Amino acid sequence: MDKQNIQRLLEDVRAGKLPVARAVEQLRHMPFEDLGFAKIDHHRSLRQGFAEVIYAKGKTPKQVVAIARGMLRPRSTHNLLLTRADAGIFHAIRRLSRDAVFHPLSGAISIRRNGEIVGKGLILVVAAGTSDIPVAEEAADTAEIMGNRVESVYDVGVAGLHRLLHHREKIAAARVIVCVAGMEGALPSVVGGLVAVPVIAVPTSIGYGASFGGVAALLANLNSCASNVCVVNIDNGFGGGYVASVINRL
Amino acid sequence: MDKQNIQRLLEDVRAGKLPVARAVEQLRHMPFEDLGFAKIDHHRSLRQGFAEVIYAKGKTPKQVVAIARGMLRPRSTHNLLLTRADAGIFHAIRRLSRDAVFHPLSGAISIRRNGEIVGKGLILVVAAGTSDIPVAEEAADTAEIMGNRVESVYDVGVAGLHRLLHHREKIAAARVIVCVAGMEGALPSVVGGLVAVPVIAVPTSIGYGASFGGVAALLANLNSCASNVCVVNIDNGFGGGYVASVINRL
Amino acid sequence: MDKQNIQRLLEDVRAGKLPVARAVEQLRHMPFEDLGFAKIDHHRSLRQGFAEVIYAKGKTPKQVVAIARGMLRPRSTHNLLLTRADAGIFHAIRRLSRDAVFHPLSGAISIRRNGEIVGKGLILVVAAGTSDIPVAEEAADTAEIMGNRVESVYDVGVAGLHRLLHHREKIAAARVIVCVAGMEGALPSVVGGLVAVPVIAVPTSIGYGASFGGVAALLANLNSCASNVCVVNIDNGFGGGYVASVINRL
Amino acid sequence: MDKQNIQRLLEDVRAGKLPVARAVEQLRHMPFEDLGFAKIDHHRSLRQGFAEVIYAKGKTPKQVVAIARGMLRPRSTHNLLLTRADAGIFHAIRRLSRDAVFHPLSGAISIRRNGEIVGKGLILVVAAGTSDIPVAEEAADTAEIMGNRVESVYDVGVAGLHRLLHHREKIAAARVIVCVAGMEGALPSVVGGLVAVPVIAVPTSIGYGASFGGVAALLANLNSCASNVCVVNIDNGFGGGYVASVINRL
Amino acid sequence: MDKQNIQRLLEDVRAGKLPVARAVEQLRHMPFEDLGFAKIDHHRSLRQGFAEVIYAKGKTPKQVVAIARGMLRPRSTHNLLLTRADAGIFHAIRRLSRDAVFHPLSGAISIRRNGEIVGKGLILVVAAGTSDIPVAEEAADTAEIMGNRVESVYDVGVAGLHRLLHHREKIAAARVIVCVAGMEGALPSVVGGLVAVPVIAVPTSIGYGASFGGVAALLANLNSCASNVCVVNIDNGFGGGYVASVINRL
Amino acid sequence: MDKQNIQRLLEDVRAGKLPVARAVEQLRHMPFEDLGFAKIDHHRSLRQGFAEVIYAKGKTPKQVVAIARGMLRPRSTHNLLLTRADAGIFHAIRRLSRDAVFHPLSGAISIRRNGEIVGKGLILVVAAGTSDIPVAEEAADTAEIMGNRVESVYDVGVAGLHRLLHHREKIAAARVIVCVAGMEGALPSVVGGLVAVPVIAVPTSIGYGASFGGVAALLANLNSCASNVCVVNIDNGFGGGYVASVINRL
Amino acid sequence: MDKQNIQRLLEDVRAGKLPVARAVEQLRHMPFEDLGFAKIDHHRSLRQGFAEVIYAKGKTPKQVVAIARGMLRPRSTHNLLLTRADAGIFHAIRRLSRDAVFHPLSGAISIRRNGEIVGKGLILVVAAGTSDIPVAEEAADTAEIMGNRVESVYDVGVAGLHRLLHHREKIAAARVIVCVAGMEGALPSVVGGLVAVPVIAVPTSIGYGASFGGVAALLANLNSCASNVCVVNIDNGFGGGYVASVINRL
Amino acid sequence: MDKQNIQRLLEDVRAGKLPVARAVEQLRHMPFEDLGFAKIDHHRSLRQGFAEVIYAKGKTPKQVVAIARGMLRPRSTHNLLLTRADAGIFHAIRRLSRDAVFHPLSGAISIRRNGEIVGKGLILVVAAGTSDIPVAEEAADTAEIMGNRVESVYDVGVAGLHRLLHHREKIAAARVIVCVAGMEGALPSVVGGLVAVPVIAVPTSIGYGASFGGVAALLANLNSCASNVCVVNIDNGFGGGYVASVINRL
Repeated sequence: MDKQNIQRLLEDVRAGKLPVARAVEQLRHMPFEDLGFAKIDHHRSLRQGFAEVIYAKGKTPKQVVAIARGMLRPRSTHNLLLTRADAGIFHAIRRLSRDAVFHPLSGAISIRRNGEIVGKGLILVVAAGTSDIPVAEEAADTAEIMGNRVESVYDVGVAGLHRLLHHREKIAAARVIVCVAGMEGALPSVVGGLVAVPVIAVPTSIGYGASFGGVAALLANLNSCASNVCVVNIDNGFGGGYVASVINRL
Repeated sequence: MDKQNIQRLLEDVRAGKLPVARAVEQLRHMPFEDLGFAKIDHHRSLRQGFAEVIYAKGKTPKQVVAIARGMLRPRSTHNLLLTRADAGIFHAIRRLSRDAVFHPLSGAISIRRNGEIVGKGLILVVAAGTSDIPVAEEAADTAEIMGNRVESVYDVGVAGLHRLLHHREKIAAARVIVCVAGMEGALPSVVGGLVAVPVIAVPTSIGYGASFGGVAALLANLNSCASNVCVVNIDNGFGGGYVASVINRL
Repeated sequence: MDKQNIQRLLEDVRAGKLPVARAVEQLRHMPFEDLGFAKIDHHRSLRQGFAEVIYAKGKTPKQVVAIARGMLRPRSTHNLLLTRADAGIFHAIRRLSRDAVFHPLSGAISIRRNGEIVGKGLILVVAAGTSDIPVAEEAADTAEIMGNRVESVYDVGVAGLHRLLHHREKIAAARVIVCVAGMEGALPSVVGGLVAVPVIAVPTSIGYGASFGGVAALLANLNSCASNVCVVNIDNGFGGGYVASVINRL
Repeated sequence: MDKQNIQRLLEDVRAGKLPVARAVEQLRHMPFEDLGFAKIDHHRSLRQGFAEVIYAKGKTPKQVVAIARGMLRPRSTHNLLLTRADAGIFHAIRRLSRDAVFHPLSGAISIRRNGEIVGKGLILVVAAGTSDIPVAEEAADTAEIMGNRVESVYDVGVAGLHRLLHHREKIAAARVIVCVAGMEGALPSVVGGLVAVPVIAVPTSIGYGASFGGVAALLANLNSCASNVCVVNIDNGFGGGYVASVINRL
Repeated sequence: MDKQNIQRLLEDVRAGKLPVARAVEQLRHMPFEDLGFAKIDHHRSLRQGFAEVIYAKGKTPKQVVAIARGMLRPRSTHNLLLTRADAGIFHAIRRLSRDAVFHPLSGAISIRRNGEIVGKGLILVVAAGTSDIPVAEEAADTAEIMGNRVESVYDVGVAGLHRLLHHREKIAAARVIVCVAGMEGALPSVVGGLVAVPVIAVPTSIGYGASFGGVAALLANLNSCASNVCVVNIDNGFGGGYVASVINRL
Repeated sequence: MDKQNIQRLLEDVRAGKLPVARAVEQLRHMPFEDLGFAKIDHHRSLRQGFAEVIYAKGKTPKQVVAIARGMLRPRSTHNLLLTRADAGIFHAIRRLSRDAVFHPLSGAISIRRNGEIVGKGLILVVAAGTSDIPVAEEAADTAEIMGNRVESVYDVGVAGLHRLLHHREKIAAARVIVCVAGMEGALPSVVGGLVAVPVIAVPTSIGYGASFGGVAALLANLNSCASNVCVVNIDNGFGGGYVASVINRL
Repeated sequence: MDKQNIQRLLEDVRAGKLPVARAVEQLRHMPFEDLGFAKIDHHRSLRQGFAEVIYAKGKTPKQVVAIARGMLRPRSTHNLLLTRADAGIFHAIRRLSRDAVFHPLSGAISIRRNGEIVGKGLILVVAAGTSDIPVAEEAADTAEIMGNRVESVYDVGVAGLHRLLHHREKIAAARVIVCVAGMEGALPSVVGGLVAVPVIAVPTSIGYGASFGGVAALLANLNSCASNVCVVNIDNGFGGGYVASVINRL
Repeated sequence: MDKQNIQRLLEDVRAGKLPVARAVEQLRHMPFEDLGFAKIDHHRSLRQGFAEVIYAKGKTPKQVVAIARGMLRPRSTHNLLLTRADAGIFHAIRRLSRDAVFHPLSGAISIRRNGEIVGKGLILVVAAGTSDIPVAEEAADTAEIMGNRVESVYDVGVAGLHRLLHHREKIAAARVIVCVAGMEGALPSVVGGLVAVPVIAVPTSIGYGASFGGVAALLANLNSCASNVCVVNIDNGFGGGYVASVINRL
């Protein structure tokens, strides 16, 4: 029951066609979305003006394609992002849209139908080690499809400070930073100390032994002595890029 | 060695007063801050234009007062925030500044010397239960002293949705939301689904048994199905308010 | 905005006093509770016809008394339960109501204003060791104030099966069983195997060393080979009694 | 030694055929089941009037078939449920009974020989995400084979409240609710707050990183601020459906 | 219903005083202990011929004394052991029995009324550090009151092998060894490798940081490369002494 | 340097052939085993008079065969046990000895060259579920090859007490009991309460979700309220059988 | 910007070719490495005079070869070590350098172009069990390629002390000891007690059940009662050999 | 039995005073220390030429004083260190030796009787936060009493890099570095990357929430991407200083 329906109902009431008692009942049971709560209709996704997202992992290719087809209906001009996909899914999606691009490092598939930049500044993705790059790329791909200018700086682990400091002008230029690191997860603290903008730490599962699949980095990030650091889940490059985008639109 | 020193050194070189070889040596060993890296001089604090912070817990009252005295030197107009303090410390601080205000719920002491609002929008602090209020107040006090307009909504746990939804206009009005919840930590997911702005989740140690001192809420927050949620440490109200402030200044 | 308000609004629309457009706006923003969603107004409590509950721990005595006073307003005939209280709170509550009864083993305070039995059968509380009794009593006190017939069987740990089996007729007579055990938490499995009714396992923090504050019992309960066992939080006697009561009203 | 044996023994004693001393010895050692403790003969199963269950995982197909054949002996009219089976086992079971039905989403095989509805009300299975459906289906299949009317509501995660609230009449109609959710496991708290009936939370291992194979959801469920929630093991759809069935028969 | 009762019942049957049908009923419901299952009547204690035990911690002094009084009824000649008691309880127990002896290191109180040695060999208690001695003493006191010859060797940590090897003849003479160690818990492996008799490892909570309250030692003991090592709970000196006694009686 | 070598050295000294100084040196550096410390030469094995053991897992088949060949040298009459082996290794071992027997359930290979029974009583292996049988068989095979009379009772989980109690005479007859259980690991507590002999609990990794690979059962066993229970590592059937054998030889 | 560049800049200033203001700017932004901070240019590697290291795992063979080619540029005489490689990578590396040697036990590939011994004493690698040898070999290979004299002692677990003590002269001769052990991780404590030199403990993931992938050994090492023990990550043979080399160069 | 004893025995054998058979027996049972294993006589302490250590915590003041008195016997010139002591113990120790010095920050008491510097270079203790200073001081006090030149650099957390880099010359001058940090424990990685000498990381329990008593810092240290870092237990300043001293003597 959308705005039009409510209006019609009220007009029926005014016209005396609908008794007040029955109108009360209909109003009390109308589905919430009919009240126009479009703003609460997000469903783990990006329906807020820039992009739709499908988390492909754990879904069959058939399911993924069916969802994508629904989202690619002609009149929509939203961008579409599929995360944790693979070449097989890409080939199926390709048949739906010639514009589909596969990002092999992150496993993301993006369909850009709207090139507008809605983010106000630069989102910088910084990754500590080469093994952290797939997660970093997922963050970068997410931020890009959501309409941001994105740059990346990789392999700048804290045990070689000069490499990180070499990029300090780019770091200083960012409006939001996504900081991706596994092992001891020290990078967000160091980067956080260099800037006055928000730093989204993405711990990764890179490491072995007592890294416990990213727990070491996660705990380090949560205990960061740099106060401008907040954290998303282990290996959650999408989440890092998403939060950065939400901030960058402000 | 600040900018003036470097200039003087170079002028000495130009004037032939200082041999090149010795100048090279001096330049190679100059302290970093002398290069003007003021931007890297944060040290877990708020030295970026709005406030100074002292984490009082784990320091002796004497240490706290000494640090505060240093920060309250006449010419500075920074606001000052002391977190996790108590009445004893407050009395000592009061003697340093008549403007000191004690916030008993959070244990914070604020000295406002600069009433400027630098945050661009409203920071809303939402707390699930009444026991979460001290952490929520720490977030609110932090955001306020950092120059933000702050409002709070308390006791809106997810098992009574109507209470939360009652405040949905205030929620919709916020530019950044700090969401404080212990026990099962479900609130940030529900709030995150209602808005399109960043939500900073602050898990609290409220709960017992299998809440494991806030671990249950922390894990829930890290696994939030709302993608606009990021997380700070357990009970870290200061961190929640700080990250929100950093975002709200953008 | 309750049913009357909606009716009045609609009558205004019918009478032509209120333009449809403004009525639409008003309806879209009415607070949810105004729609009569009384059923979603539980808030961690027992407002569904039998009792009100205050979790006293973590609240100041003053707060507890204020909440209790509100709940004891004359026209209400709900029973009132305060859990995790103490003698000090009891004395204050006593002044509000002469009917207040203190249960020292569980720390509960009950005010029975309605003696009706709404539970359809017997709720049996079974506890493994004498140290588990406070948690068991909290379960029993909760179930009783919620209008159930409650019996208890204590000190029937599985290392002395004959003691448990001695009570097998009482066990067979129960409609719902709350099973309270610390240490290795084996009792719910054994009791669950003796009956065909639901068994609510309440693990307790009784034990030392590798009991890890009740984790051993909790894990045992979650892994019970008796399929009619479900689990609540460690030491959550209130929860055990509450779930049992909700089931026993069916 | 069943009732007949005891009677015969006592008659022999009365007839003087059996000395008292030997009768005492025989009685002291009679197997417990001979005393007619049929009610304690459950063994992780459903022998209480509605169904038999075989947990297929971890058993060889041959073992599963042999157990199933024993349970399908002509005179029995019990329903039979095999959980965590696969197509291979299904083909073998199919040869035993033409009535065998395979539920591919949950991996369950059901043989319905008794269509009687013994559950008194509706069991509603609610699942947060599409990835939680296999566990939810296991719960639904279990409840159905145990003689219940079962309905399901899927993909109603808390980050899109309107989707859940859209089903609030079905939710309100249920006598018992099984609530299946992975990731942050917030759904049972929200659902629990909407109803006054028991909610069986089934945490799932869906999620990644700090979901730790379902631990995040499990802890959230155990710490639910909705008091009518109890919990079974991670991914234990069978347990959720079983406990719901045991309750629904009351 | 004990042996005498059964005999009387059967004699009544034989005498025709009791109808068979009623006798069947009585027999089916007799409490298990009435069948003379004295052997299943242990209840976490030592009622098997040598001693009774009261775990004092977590009980009020009043409760402890009441239980002790019951166990000290004149005709019994069992020894009595109270573990985790203190001087206050000792003074109360002293009034019950002049023979009560307090062991301040372990907190045990023993009342020896039966000096018989029932253990067949020597039980040796070996402790790694001086801080482990209270737990070791609890093991020794337990084994002694249960009728064993007990010797102790303390402060023989593995980082000073010569100290341990100095006692290798005593070690070789033991029939059962209780090995008590905190920190890295290496001692049971070394001792286990020196002998061919059972070694009961008692991990202690001695240590700090990553000893996690004895978890480090517990895990070390469970992973011992000496195959003749088995383990009891952290700090469970009583359990170590008890298991050793049960073995030494064989 | 064995006894003969020392004697020869001393005779050389006596005969004046070997200077005292050099003899001192030789004695100070002689390998420990030369001193006849055969008792310390166990190395995770059974060299104490009854059997040799090879843990096959983690070794290449070639390595396993080489070690076995060395142990099967003609003059030795020790039994040989290979644990965690497979059919491939069995075929290779078969070529070394016609007497090799493969136990497919446990994966053990035994070569019995010495049929002597050295254990004084019966070792009973009790397992809770059918999935626990492989671990139970490893325990039984180990105890048998070490010269014990062994019997087994399987599928007697605590949720069907009558099944366990049906075997109570066999349980009562055992001198040592090995109790194997996964899931909630309750069996050792129940069995421990039925007997006065040592019970070696072997937790297994059987279970799912919050069984955490056997941790639930392990913790339950460590916290057993039956005092005659001690514990070995998860799935360590060999350790359970070994400790039982060491005890049964006493 | 290296020393020469700075010198040239200063000469330009002195010559009046470069205005002081612009020189200040250039100096403030010069890359850190240009200041000659060669010592901070390590990047998780061995660029300090003896060797380069590539961690091959988690990199594609192509990436590994590309990095290796860069490091093997003609003029460099550094040794090169690739850890966690395999035969496939070896064949590719072999084509780059005929001197490449594959160490199959550790998976290391070494290219020795500089045979100089820079370590001052003997590095001894001691391993507890045969399964620990791959990690031990990684430590030994690392130490060797870094220019040390290395010896190894394997299979000297603490349950067979005589085997360890047999090597006590070699142990006494070492300048640094790397001690590799899984399971209960007791070896470093025993070895640490035998010597006065630093012992680097490398816990391994060898073990099962409650070894938790090396956590048991790691905790044991961290809690060692031998004070000369420090620890690296689980299975981190490279780290053990590296730290030992850094120490041995002092 | 020391060298002299063996010599005498052998002379007796040579002289025919002692039969060979009895000499064999005596030699087989001689205590290990009699073989001259003075080097294995360390006992968690510093008996290797520079200092004795008493860990005071967990010992009664009386015990501590008794042990200290034994160690301060006139002829010894060892230094003495008591760790984790307090003012009360200091007063008692002061009576034993006028030279006792109390270090209030670390709780250490040192008695310097030997001022010799045996360490070859500088040991630098670096601490991240002011709350880490007590642990850092324990490390410094330990290294000093063991005969080293020690310097400290405090409050140089990684979120303010310039503070750390300000001390880079002192850092470059150290022969061994002890790096003390709580919270996210990032400092050792950054410091390790700046130098080519061994870095001993001492994680501290400073932090809250998800620092879990120092676990976050410990895991970070174990996963350091700087290869020259090794780790001791949480808060183990003594261990850090000890290992550094052992290295610095090489």
